[in-house]
Order: sequence, then structure tokens, then C-alpha cells
Amino acid sequence: MSDPAKDEAPATPAVDMIDEVTPALVRGVLGLLEAGRDREVQEAVASLTPSGVAWLLEQVSSEERRLLVAVLKPTLDPETYVELDETVRDEVLDALDSRDIAAAARQLDTDDAAALIDELPDEKRPAVLAALPADERGEIERVLAYPEDSAGRLMQRELVKVPSEWTVGQVIDWCREAPDLPDDVYDLFVVDAEGRLVGSIKLGRMLRTKRPVPVTDIVDPDIPSLPVSADQEEVAHVFRDHNLVSCPVVDSEQRLLGVIMVDDVVDVIDEEAEEDLMSLAGVQQVDVYADVLQTVRSRMPWLLVNLGTAFIASSVIGRFEGEIEKLVALAVLMPIVASLGGNAGTQALTVAVRALATGELTRANALRFVGKELTVGGLNGLSFAVLVGVVTSLWFGDWRLGAVIGAAVICNLVVAGLAGTGIPLGLNRMGIDPAVSSGVFLTAITDVVGFLAFLGLAAWLLL
Amino acid sequence: MSDPAKDEAPATPAVDMIDEVTPALVRGVLGLLEAGRDREVQEAVASLTPSGVAWLLEQVSSEERRLLVAVLKPTLDPETYVELDETVRDEVLDALDSRDIAAAARQLDTDDAAALIDELPDEKRPAVLAALPADERGEIERVLAYPEDSAGRLMQRELVKVPSEWTVGQVIDWCREAPDLPDDVYDLFVVDAEGRLVGSIKLGRMLRTKRPVPVTDIVDPDIPSLPVSADQEEVAHVFRDHNLVSCPVVDSEQRLLGVIMVDDVVDVIDEEAEEDLMSLAGVQQVDVYADVLQTVRSRMPWLLVNLGTAFIASSVIGRFEGEIEKLVALAVLMPIVASLGGNAGTQALTVAVRALATGELTRANALRFVGKELTVGGLNGLSFAVLVGVVTSLWFGDWRLGAVIGAAVICNLVVAGLAGTGIPLGLNRMGIDPAVSSGVFLTAITDVVGFLAFLGLAAWLLL
Repeated sequence: MSDPAKDEAPATPAVDMIDEVTPALVRGVLGLLEAGRDREVQEAVASLTPSGVAWLLEQVSSEERRLLVAVLKPTLDPETYVELDETVRDEVLDALDSRDIAAAARQLDTDDAAALIDELPDEKRPAVLAALPADERGEIERVLAYPEDSAGRLMQRELVKVPSEWTVGQVIDWCREAPDLPDDVYDLFVVDAEGRLVGSIKLGRMLRTKRPVPVTDIVDPDIPSLPVSADQEEVAHVFRDHNLVSCPVVDSEQRLLGVIMVDDVVDVIDEEAEEDLMSLAGVQQVDVYADVLQTVRSRMPWLLVNLGTAFIASSVIGRFEGEIEKLVALAVLMPIVASLGGNAGTQALTVAVRALATGELTRANALRFVGKELTVGGLNGLSFAVLVGVVTSLWFGDWRLGAVIGAAVICNLVVAGLAGTGIPLGLNRMGIDPAVSSGVFLTAITDVVGFLAFLGLAAWLLL
Repeated sequence: MSDPAKDEAPATPAVDMIDEVTPALVRGVLGLLEAGRDREVQEAVASLTPSGVAWLLEQVSSEERRLLVAVLKPTLDPETYVELDETVRDEVLDALDSRDIAAAARQLDTDDAAALIDELPDEKRPAVLAALPADERGEIERVLAYPEDSAGRLMQRELVKVPSEWTVGQVIDWCREAPDLPDDVYDLFVVDAEGRLVGSIKLGRMLRTKRPVPVTDIVDPDIPSLPVSADQEEVAHVFRDHNLVSCPVVDSEQRLLGVIMVDDVVDVIDEEAEEDLMSLAGVQQVDVYADVLQTVRSRMPWLLVNLGTAFIASSVIGRFEGEIEKLVALAVLMPIVASLGGNAGTQALTVAVRALATGELTRANALRFVGKELTVGGLNGLSFAVLVGVVTSLWFGDWRLGAVIGAAVICNLVVAGLAGTGIPLGLNRMGIDPAVSSGVFLTAITDVVGFLAFLGLAAWLLL
């Protein structure tokens, strides 16, 4: 046994993309490309994994990408297209003709091929489908008929179905002889005469069982299965909750249609987490690779909504013009109340959005959760009221101003706790993704309440 | 082949936690618990998966949880502890004595057992370790010697090592006879006489190969491996990039130490995504289950920092008290400039933080990225300057005021683009997690610049 402490600086390089595709390699490839040494470009890239090549293509400029794809096209592993960022993939597919894309699709699993073809512009898709052999075209069209982001889209049809009347020996012999059985089979699925799912057998279990044993003796019938129309978020939940490597997909009659593998689910989990993060900030997707105009367009709607709420908040201030003229300190201090409320509300909101996404927050514990956040808002409100009140009293030499701003802070932090939980819960109940629109409503409320409470109390008590 | 359109409303229920542990079931269990019908409580819970039981324990109040654990203890699957939220797990472990915990740890994989024991309070840990048999204690202590969040902690030691001089037949016979081989083996790992990793063989591949073939003929030597000290974020990257189901872990001499399975990586991916989301909002973790005082304490630091920057922004406004007294419209409008800047900056910041986390943003494309965000800021600045300027001119009947606020908006949105990319890139370069602290700096900058640009320009041009 080696001493872990000594392993801190390993001699073995990690096989991380960042290590695989070094800046030096990117520069090297671009140098060869510019020099027109196409063969050497292909050789330099040949040793990379599909993810590595995808990564390389993402790192370079649009112009370089187009040239690189033209050179690499004949030798490229089609998995590379699957691994590419969406924006970059659109660009790369644009540089390929229908025959190239069809050839790539034929080498991919049905789910990946369908996803690739689905992303093509409408005018290009028929040509690519037409370039495919009839049976593969049929398979892909069947997948594309399922709703986007459903289990039907994620599943692959390549799987091992075992008739329930077979013995272990028959299965083993069949596996040995089947010409195109993939190596990475982990579970065998047992089906009855109507094609309905009976259960699964892990390959390891089968290997350890004697040949004459009927498969029904070792089949595990208590396995989760997913309806073909299940949303991908639900798929991710099931994989997480049951720690699955693969999960069978069935139709409404329990007939086995396909299998979803965990690596596709990892992508879904990444995607869903990213969606929440981006939605809260008002960004449509990670647009690192989108061009300037796309980015400007995609960010504008959120800023527009924000501008609308900012004008509403301003109109609240406008009602107190007279008071501000008399006591200009009000103008100096009012952003503090609004800002504290916005931040405290965002904390509650983020926890609520994430807890709704992971399923930790449900109707069963919603009331307790809102109550807790209200109390947290009240307690933080008290502490910060004292702090802000004292600083203000010292700064402006006016304890009454300090008392007013303190009261406004308590008020706004309680409202922030209520709005930060109530808004996402309400949107969720209405079937709207709480990540997308919560933030706008929240800051609108904490700004308006912040200004109103502070200026209103000041007008009432000080002037 | 069934018609997908018909499958929209499946008869098969999805095996989702939310469906498995219904509010009715929670109420039912609590009713039985209150009535003291312990046996029936155990029966009601017996059919649930460990995730389901964990979910049930999370849904109830602290008091109910304590009672429920006392009743369920004898029949509980130890996996349940692994599936629990951290805060809830601490509470549950607190209700168990050392012997119970040791008994649970013995039934878990080494990695899960070590994680469980690591989480115990310092005073309880020695007693639990002492209650374990010497060999299992040794295994767990070895795992705990690896740094937290490293591959060494994630790996399990249960794996199939095959000597490189064996034939396929020998391996199959050994698998058939080994008394405690787990069913869910997917890859066999081939090692040389010194225990160094030679490569892996997928179980499916082995099954399809004739018995006399030496394993070295079918071993895949080009498989990724992870150094035992690799950080869990790197582990996740490798699994994602190579679409792995399992990955061997080696020491600095390439000796095989263990294997990481994809289900543990799914948890890591979830955790990392959650960390980014929470850090950006200034929340330490999803504290749905934390009590009020814990939550108040964990949220306070961020609000304090925010308060500090709010006072700085206020002091900027304070410098223009005279101007605001003369033209109170300045006080009414100034939050608009700050708010637009803050939101535009957050958009750029969130994209940058996520792109840094996924490795899409690197030194190779950092300059291009900053340049793009500056341009986006400038273009959005122009559009919003026109919009805000026109509305302001109409509202206050003063086109010069409109021109000034427009100019301030352009200025603040360009600064927002620069700060939203520059801050996370800078923090990342200094080795600080950009998600944790970017937000504070960003809003400090956009508030100060927003107020300064608008009030400064107004003082200079209007008064």
C-alpha cells in the first residue's frame, strides 16, 4: 500500500481536456494549418479523443474553425460532433454537405444521430435524411417523433433483449455468436412474448450462474423503468435516486423500446444545472461561443424587463421629491435599503429555486420553508437594522434618521424573505420554470418596498 | 412499433421519488408513528428505496425525524444514510450510537463508509472506528488519509484485478468461483506483477472471447486513469469527456488502487453545479434543512460585505448632495443607471463563472471573450441609452437630462462588461474560486460607476 501523502504530486498526468489540448498544441495545429501542411494537421489531431478535438475546435476563431474542419473532415470521429458546444456545432455542420453529415450519422448511436439531425436547419434536414439507408432513416425518424427533451429522445435502441423462456446457457451462446453486439453492454433485459419488460439481469450475475438455469430464476423484476414520454429532468431524477448505470424505456403497454445510458444523463444534469444558473442571471445559455450580435439580442429582453421595473421604482422615489429636497440625506441613504433587500431576497430565492429543481422543496414542506425564511429575514433584519441605524446616526448626526432607516431595513428584509420564497413557489405551482422569471419580480418588489418604506417612514416621522 | 404520439400520457407511473413518497404516504407514516404502531411504520417504509426513505426523513420535522429514526433503525438499509442531505444526516447520526453507525458502515462500500465516518463529530469518530473489525477500520483509515474531495476519497477498493498472464478461461472460472464478487462489475482491470495498471476489459468483451485467448490480447490499454490525488472537479471532467462508467485510480507508480463509479461522479457534478449557483447568490449551501439560526449565521457574511459596498456607493452620492438639492430628478433617476449596470454585469459574470467551471474559458480565448463582452456592453449601452434618454426627456421635459442619463448608461454598461469578465478571470488566475466573491465586487463597481457617471456628468453639464 502506498502512502497517500506521497501521492500529492503524481507522476501520472491526468487525462483532462485541459491537459490533453494544451495551448501549445492549439498553436502548433494552427501553425501547420496556416502552412498548408494538411497531413500533419490530421496526424497531430489523430491521437486526441473526440472530446479533445471538440475542445480544440471550440478554442479557435470561426475562420480557423472552418479551415480546420475542411482539413479534418475525412479523418474525424463522428463522436466529435456530439461533443461540440451547440453554437460551434451549428457552424461546423454548416461547413459540411449532406453526404458528410449522413455518413457521420450512420456511425453514431440512434439517439446521438437523431439529435444531430434534429439540430440541422429545416432546409438541410431532408437532404441528410435522404442520404441515409431506408432502415436507418426510419429509426431516426421514429426517434424524432418523440417530444424534445423526452426519454424517447435520450434512449438508444441498441440493447440486448432476452426472451423470458431462455436459459442462461442460451443467452451466453447467443451473446458469443451475435455479430454486432456492442462491448459496453452492462444489463440484459428480459422480455415476454409480447415484448413487455420482465426485468433485467446484470452481466456479472449471468456470468456467475450455471448454464441450465432459466433466466427467469435470476432476473431482477424490481428495476425502475421510464415511460418514453418522461421529461429529461425526470430521467435525471430517476438515475440519481437509484444510482443507475442504465435504465430501460417502455411504452404505455410496458413494451421495451430502448435503454438510456448514464453518460447521456450526465449531459442532462449538466444542462439542467446550467439552465438554472443562467436563467437566474437572465442569460439564455452559456453563450461563450455565440457571436456579438446573437449575444446582444439574447441579453436584451432581461435588461428591458429590468429597465421597466427600475422605472417603477423611480416613480416611487418621484412621489417623494418634496421630502428629498428638504432632506437630501434620504437620497444618499435610500439605495442601502433597496440593496440589502435585493441581496437577502436573492439568497432565499436561489435556495428555493435549487431546492425546487432537486425536488427537496415540495408541497409537504413548503409552508415550513416559507416560515423559516420569514424568520431568517426578520432576524437578519434586526441585526442589520441596528448596524445601519448606528452608522447612519453617526454619519448624519441624527438618531431619528438612524431609527427610520433601521425600521425600513427590517421591513424590507422580511418582505425579501417572503418574496424570495413565495415567487418561485407560486411560479412553480403555475407550471412556470421558477428560475427564469423569479429574479425580475424579486428585485422589483425589494426596490419598491425599500424605497417606499424608507421614504414613507421618513416623510411621516421626520418631516 | 408503437406510435409515440399515443404514449404521451403513459399508464406506467414513473419511479420518481416525488411519486414514490407521496404526501399521502408521509402523512400515513406520521399517523402510524404517532399511534405508536411501530411495526406498521417499518412495513410501510420497507418497500421504499434508500433514496425514498432518505426523502421521507427530509420531509418531516426534526422532532418527527428523531422518532422515525428510532423506530426504523433496526430495519434501515445503510444506503439511506448515504442518500440523506448533509444537515439531515448529521441530525440522524446524532440520534444513533457508535455501534449502530459502525454496523451501518460495515455494510457500505469503503468510499461511502469513509464519507459517513468523516462527517461524524470529532468526539464520536474514535468510538465508531473502534467498533469496527481491524481490517475494515484499516481500509477506512487509509481512505480518510486522502485529502477531502480527492479521487482517493471517491474511489472504492472493491474491484476485479486480473493478472496479465491469465487467459480468458481462467478469468471466467475465477469469476464463477469468487465468493463475494459484486453483481455490478462492468470492467475488469488487468495489472502486471507489480500491481501496475495495464488496461481494462469490458465484461461483455470477455464473454464474447474464446477461453484460451490470453487477456493481454483483448485488454484495452488506452483507458484513462486518475491519480489518487486528483481533485473531484477533475474527476468529473474526465468522466464527462470520456463518457465513462467507471475509471481506475492509480498511485504515482501507476499501481491500481481502486475504481471510481459513475454514480458517485453524478453526485459530484450536482454538488459542483450547486456550489456555483449558491456562491453567486452568497449562500453557503442549499440550506433547506438547516435550522433558522444556522441559516441566519451562514447568510450574514455576504450581507455584511454587501452593506459595506452599499455604504461606499452612498458616500459617492453624498459628494453630490448639493447637486441633488438643486435638481431632485437626479435622485429619482440615479437607481436606474446603477440597476442596469448591475444586471448587465451579472449576465457577463454568470457566463464567465460557468465557462470557467466547465473549462470553456481558458487563457487561450480569454482576451477574445473580454473583447466580446466589452462590445456587447457597448452595443446594449447604446440601445438602452437611447431608450432611457427618450423616456427621461419626456418624463422630466428636459432633453439635456435625457442626454446625460444616456451617456451614463453607456459608460456603466461598458464598465459592467469589463468588470463582469475581468473580475472572475482575475480571481481565477489568483487561484480563488470566481463564483464565491465575484458578485460583491461587481455590484460595488457598477453601483459606484453608475452613481458617479450620472451625478458627475449632471454636475458638469447641467448645473
